[in-house]
Amino acid sequence: MKKEILVILILAGLGLFTPAMADDGYRLWLKYDQITDIAYLKECNKILSGVMITGDSPVISAAHDELIAGLAGMTGSQVTEVSSLKSSGTLVAGTFRSSPVVASLLPDVEPGTIGEEGYIIRSVTMGGKKITVIASEGDRGVLYGVFHLLRLVSMQSPLEDLSITEKPATVLRLLNHWDNLDRSVERGYAGESVWNWHLLPGYISPRYRDYARANASIGINGTVITNVNANALVLTPQYLVKVAALADVMRPYGIKVYLTARFSAPAETGGLATSDPLDPAVARWWKEKASEIYALIPDFGGFLVKANSEGQPGPQNYGRSHADGANMLADAVAPYGGVGMWRAFVYDNNIPVDRAKQAYNEFVPLDGSFRSNVLVQVKNGAVDFQPREPFHPLFGAMPSTPLMMEFQITQEYLGCSTHLVFLAPLFEECLTSDTHAAGPGSDVAKVIDGTLHGHSLTGMAGVANIGSERNWTGHLFGQANWYAFGRLAWQPSLSSATIASEWIRMTLTHDPEIADGISTMMLSSREAAVNYMTPLGLHHIMAEGHHWGPGPWVNRGRPDWTSVYYHRADTIGIGFNRTREGSDAVSQYFPPLNDIFNDPAECPENMLLWFHHVPWDHTMKSGRILWDEMCIRYQEGVNAAEVYGAYWETLNGRIDNAQYEHVRQLLKIQAREARWWKDACLLYFQTFSRRPFPAGVDKPENDLAYYRGLRFYYVPGI
Amino acid sequence: MKKEILVILILAGLGLFTPAMADDGYRLWLKYDQITDIAYLKECNKILSGVMITGDSPVISAAHDELIAGLAGMTGSQVTEVSSLKSSGTLVAGTFRSSPVVASLLPDVEPGTIGEEGYIIRSVTMGGKKITVIASEGDRGVLYGVFHLLRLVSMQSPLEDLSITEKPATVLRLLNHWDNLDRSVERGYAGESVWNWHLLPGYISPRYRDYARANASIGINGTVITNVNANALVLTPQYLVKVAALADVMRPYGIKVYLTARFSAPAETGGLATSDPLDPAVARWWKEKASEIYALIPDFGGFLVKANSEGQPGPQNYGRSHADGANMLADAVAPYGGVGMWRAFVYDNNIPVDRAKQAYNEFVPLDGSFRSNVLVQVKNGAVDFQPREPFHPLFGAMPSTPLMMEFQITQEYLGCSTHLVFLAPLFEECLTSDTHAAGPGSDVAKVIDGTLHGHSLTGMAGVANIGSERNWTGHLFGQANWYAFGRLAWQPSLSSATIASEWIRMTLTHDPEIADGISTMMLSSREAAVNYMTPLGLHHIMAEGHHWGPGPWVNRGRPDWTSVYYHRADTIGIGFNRTREGSDAVSQYFPPLNDIFNDPAECPENMLLWFHHVPWDHTMKSGRILWDEMCIRYQEGVNAAEVYGAYWETLNGRIDNAQYEHVRQLLKIQAREARWWKDACLLYFQTFSRRPFPAGVDKPENDLAYYRGLRFYYVPGI
Repeated sequence: MKKEILVILILAGLGLFTPAMADDGYRLWLKYDQITDIAYLKECNKILSGVMITGDSPVISAAHDELIAGLAGMTGSQVTEVSSLKSSGTLVAGTFRSSPVVASLLPDVEPGTIGEEGYIIRSVTMGGKKITVIASEGDRGVLYGVFHLLRLVSMQSPLEDLSITEKPATVLRLLNHWDNLDRSVERGYAGESVWNWHLLPGYISPRYRDYARANASIGINGTVITNVNANALVLTPQYLVKVAALADVMRPYGIKVYLTARFSAPAETGGLATSDPLDPAVARWWKEKASEIYALIPDFGGFLVKANSEGQPGPQNYGRSHADGANMLADAVAPYGGVGMWRAFVYDNNIPVDRAKQAYNEFVPLDGSFRSNVLVQVKNGAVDFQPREPFHPLFGAMPSTPLMMEFQITQEYLGCSTHLVFLAPLFEECLTSDTHAAGPGSDVAKVIDGTLHGHSLTGMAGVANIGSERNWTGHLFGQANWYAFGRLAWQPSLSSATIASEWIRMTLTHDPEIADGISTMMLSSREAAVNYMTPLGLHHIMAEGHHWGPGPWVNRGRPDWTSVYYHRADTIGIGFNRTREGSDAVSQYFPPLNDIFNDPAECPENMLLWFHHVPWDHTMKSGRILWDEMCIRYQEGVNAAEVYGAYWETLNGRIDNAQYEHVRQLLKIQAREARWWKDACLLYFQTFSRRPFPAGVDKPENDLAYYRGLRFYYVPGI
Repeated sequence: MKKEILVILILAGLGLFTPAMADDGYRLWLKYDQITDIAYLKECNKILSGVMITGDSPVISAAHDELIAGLAGMTGSQVTEVSSLKSSGTLVAGTFRSSPVVASLLPDVEPGTIGEEGYIIRSVTMGGKKITVIASEGDRGVLYGVFHLLRLVSMQSPLEDLSITEKPATVLRLLNHWDNLDRSVERGYAGESVWNWHLLPGYISPRYRDYARANASIGINGTVITNVNANALVLTPQYLVKVAALADVMRPYGIKVYLTARFSAPAETGGLATSDPLDPAVARWWKEKASEIYALIPDFGGFLVKANSEGQPGPQNYGRSHADGANMLADAVAPYGGVGMWRAFVYDNNIPVDRAKQAYNEFVPLDGSFRSNVLVQVKNGAVDFQPREPFHPLFGAMPSTPLMMEFQITQEYLGCSTHLVFLAPLFEECLTSDTHAAGPGSDVAKVIDGTLHGHSLTGMAGVANIGSERNWTGHLFGQANWYAFGRLAWQPSLSSATIASEWIRMTLTHDPEIADGISTMMLSSREAAVNYMTPLGLHHIMAEGHHWGPGPWVNRGRPDWTSVYYHRADTIGIGFNRTREGSDAVSQYFPPLNDIFNDPAECPENMLLWFHHVPWDHTMKSGRILWDEMCIRYQEGVNAAEVYGAYWETLNGRIDNAQYEHVRQLLKIQAREARWWKDACLLYFQTFSRRPFPAGVDKPENDLAYYRGLRFYYVPGI
């Protein structure tokens, strides 16, 4: 080698003379940057000096390529692939079936215990040689095991003496994309839809594969690629070939494609006179449609349906029940192993006494009447993805029906893509709520994972926050919510702190001090948002038309779409009376929760105004009266948002500069908008409370007329 | 240094053990990748061993940062900045005013000859030391000179004995963004608008600066950031602070921001009863609006207006002329040095005998009645950005008015973002057309650069093809059209081949054989598209609703929006009779063009059907009859598109893999769509010609009913 080249390459390698890399966020948590900790690098090179991965399916091939690329990136060395266990430090990966070596290394593992998606990662010694094994009963388990190992290396976790056994807690771990065929995304705040329908199937964007990789890395195994406010066009041949092209990209990553079914499709695009689910011609149309889909996509997952809700057509249009509709669709896909997911987010055109009660009222009577391949998909709370809601009373209340969780990853009510709000604590709060459906310990997680009522068909769905923005989610920290959803769908018992730590180390830094600081910010951020938006059980007080800013004064239009319907503020107090003397929503919960929620002294304060209309001078646990407490909470939210900004500025020069600058600007926006929420809400509620702001609460920057007069145009995500 | 690190770094530097870099296209032609030609690298390091750039304005600072980053990237070494000319190999850059050194190195340059934007790059020797000087009278000239030098290095051009003098031929070199405030882009095929209005001014995307850099690198000095189908909202305070934030990013790159003015804004958002340009209150409203804008944006460029065209409001709504409207707006911005650009693309609600004649008829009588800071912006052709049009007859016909060129960079009628169509030949064809307005040699370029009629206010606008897609333009080769526009606005006499060569070397490869191959493809691509879409002077035969696919049968709606209005096919022949016996559009051209165009024997065959209704059995220069010639041209277009795809596949492994795969897929789409155009058009025209396809023309893949029955949804760019 010429001396000049050598010198140049050394210098280039040192990174001294090249412009600093700016991380654009595209690689998500799969960065595979070279390890800079020399001791850890040595450990890696020792323990993973050779790789032997057996099997030749597309899934194994994807696992192989990921492993090789990931290890090469992180170790900075070409990975040596070996065909036998000649030396110490070999990584062996494969299924028990396809690899006799794998089977021989784990003689103690009983067949059938790990499953197709579960895996074992274990350090073993054979003939004095140290071997690391990744084993599964299925190719997908090997893929997940590979991603797990890569995560360990990314986090610079110890690689010796591994003894990991993982199995997903739920069968269906799905993203729901509220993406329209024109590439707009309902409640999407990260650019257009990732799906470029116009160019499909001819143009396969590299993003599709990276999307699949990212999802597989956190165990997501399905994606509903179309909006629940559905378009029948996607079921036409012109679009199905496009869907099939996406399915082809997803398949090697263990991801099935699902579609939303427009219930009126037989009449809209099928030329039938009706879409009545009990009409034999309609049922036949769906069966033929399923046959057509499965011919193109043999592993098609099935349908997700939003019916008779917010204007969507459904079986009730024909005097039929949700079960009639769901069962007809489920029958169409059943011969191919498909499922039907029927959303419980329903409310009819009659204005209810309490919208929060409707799903329970409509669905509990149907328990037991669904086909075995139907899941009812239930939002975490009974209203609509508010910053805080009590868990949905349906959980535990339909023992004969698999209930699938629907979380919202996109931050419809949580600052869209400009607020740093880590959602794992919200998800965790719901999953660990005890429904008491079968006595104490009947956590929501046990309803979802099927253990409470003995269901084997289980699932969790997350409404995606993914778009065509380079960093996928608009806000860099939006990536953490995608990550958290996947990890919790796999293992609902994971703690928010664990998830945050994993994500931070893979995405931002290995510096433990910085990681701790960022983790503290993330773990407190959801409570901060609750405080500056809807403290103490307030909910649904956002602006009209968009769900981004405050609008507690909204009182026009359909009552249960207003703010005043939900907060019920008057000169006496504030809050929705859902007690037995009120809407009696409390009675939809099992004892003793019904009594606890019913009693203002017992009801957790963070849900007080959800269940009670409380006088402004009600004494809170802090000793303050309600009005003062509410003011202080709003102020605390603002203060937290400002602290985040100030803390972040201490990271200047200590993390990647592009990441730093991106988040710095967004945190400034968040702090400003937190103050907007506080000022607007408190000034408005003050017109009822007629009390001054307590000490410690900042004077509003403008008067109420100013906030009420603000108009915004073209707010994203509608 | 520890031995391990050294080894790792060497290996990393060699690139052997890291995953291959995939070029996502974001860096455009400003890649600054390290030079791999060792001899050239040596030359660089010798000639540019030290850098001395003087001045401290934001523009000089931008030039400095670009120079340092660019040279560091390409040489792989930190750039040494020096403060005096101690050693050989120094690059000196600055203005004559601010740098006595610069002035002393170029004693022969007369003050005032280079201008604020022009520059000299010269190799000089002083005291035995070899110095490279970049000199200008203005900071922007220094910036442009720096980009020129970086281009030389990027192209690995010789750096010795430089003697370059450059001055832009036009004063205003502008992009026109047809971007809406909701981020949709009219005729945009590269994702959403780059302007994220919702997040402005709080969030400044890194893209804004990179947009400014890219434009400055090709001499573009202004950007009209809003759609000509204008929205008055952008003139409200809420939006003007957002515009100002963008202007702040653009300013250091010598780029001024312009807005489109909604003519009815005084009535729409200003609370006035009228927007009549002769109403004093209206004129005052615009003066106050200008004052408000300039207080926020001191270097605001001015207004672009589309008035009384396609439903846009304008002075004719009040019985006033285009001049009345333009002058009122021009007066409002004149005190601040702003300009008014008034589009000549007008046609009223009466269906004309020939739409191609309308702009001429409306504007020629107004010549001489515009204020001195008004430019009339004229599309290159008289209909609408067709694959081929004769130059617009207004060029040369308004000697007392500065006419600004409007080219369309976005491929509205040229395959959107999936067809590789290099537009420099289209631009060049128009610019080099001789209008004969002042005798032979009266090229369109001389109208545009002001030399023909002695105008000092001159300009060229390009309708941008830029969006939020990672590679900015959707199709990688769309970048070449943006590049070509900028280069031609600076210097209209540049050849397409020169421009292609520059772009290829900076974007794709330094391999001369590959560069030649790609250049051949690019230079022939526009003629190929003309052939498979609209050969022999055909025009405006695209589908209804979108302008992407063929629709020669379109006959519904407003006649001059149909295809049949333009092609006039019947059993006798095809083409629009614009001769003296027809619409007499030929008489809008100066002699001898009027006679040449009028005579089917003299009229260039590539415009024959533009000017003539020609019998199917008319003998062409090839000896074939018209029908056969048309069929052959369509087939030649298809053949070319297929050859491009086959050629491109020979580049597998020889260029960046991501670039390769991206273009490979798109060329396949292009070839398929070329065949769609041919089959649909020929089958349709055959219903009139009643003649068979000649030998060598492929049998259509489907019948005419199939093509007429195709329906597309959500085609981008509408």
